[in-house]
Amino acid sequence: MISLEVDTAMTAPVETTTADLSAADAAKAMRDSGIGALVVLDDADEVVGIVTQSDVLGLVASATDVASATVEEICSVPVVTVDADANLLDAAELMKENSVRRLPVFDGDKLVGIVTTTDLTHYMPRLRNTILRDRPDTPKSSKIAE
Amino acid sequence: MISLEVDTAMTAPVETTTADLSAADAAKAMRDSGIGALVVLDDADEVVGIVTQSDVLGLVASATDVASATVEEICSVPVVTVDADANLLDAAELMKENSVRRLPVFDGDKLVGIVTTTDLTHYMPRLRNTILRDRPDTPKSSKIAE
Repeated sequence: MISLEVDTAMTAPVETTTADLSAADAAKAMRDSGIGALVVLDDADEVVGIVTQSDVLGLVASATDVASATVEEICSVPVVTVDADANLLDAAELMKENSVRRLPVFDGDKLVGIVTTTDLTHYMPRLRNTILRDRPDTPKSSKIAE
Repeated sequence: MISLEVDTAMTAPVETTTADLSAADAAKAMRDSGIGALVVLDDADEVVGIVTQSDVLGLVASATDVASATVEEICSVPVVTVDADANLLDAAELMKENSVRRLPVFDGDKLVGIVTTTDLTHYMPRLRNTILRDRPDTPKSSKIAE
């Protein structure tokens, strides 16, 4: 049983934005914070999307004017999210299945952070130690050895 | 002893470019291939840099004209690389230490692929199984339990 949960590896707090921000300003916010995505909130602070570096790249690739484009036009909807107490390996599976690199993290109804492929990669060496420490006892195999 | 090596998780072949490509064309190449970086080669096919989504984002954030900017102006130099037979967890450490998300992979002098935080994340569940399978025998702990 692996005991590492998402909230041990996530980045918190999470940077957010509103849908009416320009793509250029979203790019500035990401660069200034050194992050790859902003979670998009509506007027009621509900999560309605996520805007990523890839979305900005897509604009550049299609020669769209980044100053006039808004977050609403380029953000990904709906958002794949994960619970704060979910297993880290299940979060990894969820990213793989949905082809996403970032999952906003919820504690109940509350947005508490974001977990990314970078967070998981930085956690991998620690994961190894935890897996070895928490491995099931192996009396059967030691009996076979005797 | 963990037996998983970088070449079991890397993406191959790796997409490459030259330094004189425009940033806009680099963005198109990344979007069309669904990837986040291009390895930059010189005339002798030597690796001289890497250009990433973050580099393109930086251009947008600074309101630089992406059509006139070139890969040479925005790419990261020097490049942190890894050997194909390196341990996956060591690759994860290398990414953390250097704050990078992608490592071009070499087999001797030859560029054979690229390993990313996404590749490592997709590999995590498999990593768990390999760690448990390859764990050292634990006769001492079972004796303590007796």
